[in-house]
Amino acid sequence: MDLYELTMAQAFWSAGMAELPSTFSLFTRSLPKQRGYLVAAGMDDCLSWVERLAFGPLELSALEELGVFPAQFLDWLGDLRFQGDVRAVPEGTVVFPDEPILEVDAPLAVAQMAETYLLNQATLQTTLATKVSRCRQAARGRPLAEFGFRHAQGLDAGMKVARACRLVGVGATSNLAGALEYGLEVSGTMAHSFVQAHEDEVSALRNLAQALGPRATLLADTFDTERGIAAVVQVASEMHQRGVEVAAIRLDSGDLDELSRIARHALDAAGLFAVKVIVTGGLDEYRIAKLTAGPDPAPIDSFGVGSAMVVSADAPLTDTVYKLVSCDGRPVRKTSAGKVTLPGPKQVWRVPGFAGDVLALRDEPAPSEAHRPLLELVMRAGQRTEAGRRSLGEASSHHAKEIACLPADLADLEAPAPFRLRLSPELEALVARMDSSPI
Amino acid sequence: MDLYELTMAQAFWSAGMAELPSTFSLFTRSLPKQRGYLVAAGMDDCLSWVERLAFGPLELSALEELGVFPAQFLDWLGDLRFQGDVRAVPEGTVVFPDEPILEVDAPLAVAQMAETYLLNQATLQTTLATKVSRCRQAARGRPLAEFGFRHAQGLDAGMKVARACRLVGVGATSNLAGALEYGLEVSGTMAHSFVQAHEDEVSALRNLAQALGPRATLLADTFDTERGIAAVVQVASEMHQRGVEVAAIRLDSGDLDELSRIARHALDAAGLFAVKVIVTGGLDEYRIAKLTAGPDPAPIDSFGVGSAMVVSADAPLTDTVYKLVSCDGRPVRKTSAGKVTLPGPKQVWRVPGFAGDVLALRDEPAPSEAHRPLLELVMRAGQRTEAGRRSLGEASSHHAKEIACLPADLADLEAPAPFRLRLSPELEALVARMDSSPI
Repeated sequence: MDLYELTMAQAFWSAGMAELPSTFSLFTRSLPKQRGYLVAAGMDDCLSWVERLAFGPLELSALEELGVFPAQFLDWLGDLRFQGDVRAVPEGTVVFPDEPILEVDAPLAVAQMAETYLLNQATLQTTLATKVSRCRQAARGRPLAEFGFRHAQGLDAGMKVARACRLVGVGATSNLAGALEYGLEVSGTMAHSFVQAHEDEVSALRNLAQALGPRATLLADTFDTERGIAAVVQVASEMHQRGVEVAAIRLDSGDLDELSRIARHALDAAGLFAVKVIVTGGLDEYRIAKLTAGPDPAPIDSFGVGSAMVVSADAPLTDTVYKLVSCDGRPVRKTSAGKVTLPGPKQVWRVPGFAGDVLALRDEPAPSEAHRPLLELVMRAGQRTEAGRRSLGEASSHHAKEIACLPADLADLEAPAPFRLRLSPELEALVARMDSSPI
Repeated sequence: MDLYELTMAQAFWSAGMAELPSTFSLFTRSLPKQRGYLVAAGMDDCLSWVERLAFGPLELSALEELGVFPAQFLDWLGDLRFQGDVRAVPEGTVVFPDEPILEVDAPLAVAQMAETYLLNQATLQTTLATKVSRCRQAARGRPLAEFGFRHAQGLDAGMKVARACRLVGVGATSNLAGALEYGLEVSGTMAHSFVQAHEDEVSALRNLAQALGPRATLLADTFDTERGIAAVVQVASEMHQRGVEVAAIRLDSGDLDELSRIARHALDAAGLFAVKVIVTGGLDEYRIAKLTAGPDPAPIDSFGVGSAMVVSADAPLTDTVYKLVSCDGRPVRKTSAGKVTLPGPKQVWRVPGFAGDVLALRDEPAPSEAHRPLLELVMRAGQRTEAGRRSLGEASSHHAKEIACLPADLADLEAPAPFRLRLSPELEALVARMDSSPI
């Protein structure tokens, strides 16, 4: 929690406003560069946080020691629990700027306290799910594995990358804890150090193949890659003659398109048709898309993706905000230069095929029979509803249906088409009314 | 931990190589764009991890359930503890590519297991400390506060941003837990929602000022900023007449240079000379440097820096690696295309004034009397040495001395001069010897 959430709570409490009913809306203001869509994620962790919100003796004494909060206010904090409502789009939903992915209805001071945590998790997980989705799309049906924990921005991000993979349909990670926690296959190959620890490359590959058998993926680029490919083929052939097929050859540097063709050719020439070609090393959606494009794509069976994906290197930040949109029954907004927000609790209505969404006030009727609402009640009076208890597996199935319907022009990796979002007549009228009256 | 660390451990164990003495070296291969230097950080967390390394019953049964590890190997894992040595540069040290910031001497399979965690923390914390250092430098002596937890890549990153601030000399954060954990001042202002929750702007600012008194920082840009500045001046004047000086006015959008001049002028005209001007909103080192540059810099007293700093948005990834450099007394390296590493355990020697470092083999004598070594023994046989128990405050003092001596051309924010690192004659000779013999 940030200090300002508590100083504002104190000021609201002093002014007798702490318990006013309010609605805060969490949404993104714009798409990160080259993105045509976002994959909403992180809402399950958001619900877990509000469920646990409480100031225990340790927290209260730490706050007391700051010496800035009145004792009566700290008593009020000690009794506080989250008993509000939360609406959210299902995790894995494809969303666009200005569309709320989560709305909190709660007493003013309480809803405000959730800002920092909710933004942290919704931003991180949406950023990651979007990036992973783009990489998966670039692979055009070939499997991906996530190898990036080492370069994720910290432990939480490293775990949430694995979660984003499960959500988006990337089934494997190198991260043991992530695989166990979120139900992915755990995947791993070998490091250059394994080869370096031996006197020569062939002995190293042979030791690995003998220890791991059909699980062995043999790395070819510790020294000279073409010689490394020959060494892998030699060891894989020895194993083949003993009735064991090693899993794959791995290429981690150099011209991956050319090297994958050389490797595939050498494996096939030795009759090792079942041994796969895995590539890794600085991959992101742009590089993957080049390798899988055209009438004669590189003969790559799967991609291991790390650093650039796990920090979303080309767009590490998504411009999410958590804004008050209603207070004491009155719709509100801000009109700061370049940061204007739309007033009132909302609903997002969508027609099949992503032909254009309608952003409406929450209680308006559906714009047409074909429209379905995106936001659903996931927590009522502090308790999760059935919709708030969906599993990550269900979210993953939901995402698969979403992405299957996404038009190619919105999904373009470099120059996506803009998405059409229109305001409902009632929301437009409210904005016009507020524009015409001085605040 | 990544799976491959355990599959390699299993293969080393099968081949009777698991206990071979080895050295791994953690360093960066290149500087992120526009960086002229890095601030090494994260080594304290690295030591804590190796101290705790152990496979308990829960971990062992999870590994057993994977069904891929022999029972005898799992027994070996169960007995494993880290009893190696670690050398590291002191946290806060200014470092350059190819210079090890940490070296681990331990049995081959054990040292390999540390790779993922050590890289995760050293990369994250070095990336953040470097970014925070650049922002601090851009502020040219004006105070900074870190307001970015909400957009950090997860909870761990959000906490480590606060730690990086403490290390680099940014004394304040909005993050309550971070401030308590790492000994920073906790800082906070108010959100636009506070103003929006009221019927009018002046009432909102008045309620905040009355509740918080001299702690109140009043936000001016919820609606129209120039009108907001007038509202802040009105409320601050009312408080002044009652003998209370509010802390500051905060500007969060628009042309911060121009608006800060308007705000300062309005405050001074009302006799509110002690009320400070704080700016926030999309700041990074480049924007801060513009605001503080020239003969007539913007009259800004302090900067609140968030999103762009906490994800290191312009360079979210530092290219750190953890490489085997010695095995069983034999120096080793990899020669993959574009990823060649230097063999052998090392020492970095530096002369005062950053005139050029020498990268040497560990046991070489000092290149001259003026050279001092950067790497020091921080853990011996699994126990921290005195150097390994330095506090974050001591690291922060060390960093301040480092940065005070850094030449301006190396510290340039946009086009830094290249740093001169030369190899010692012995290291050069070793490389030449290895170049001339097959692998």
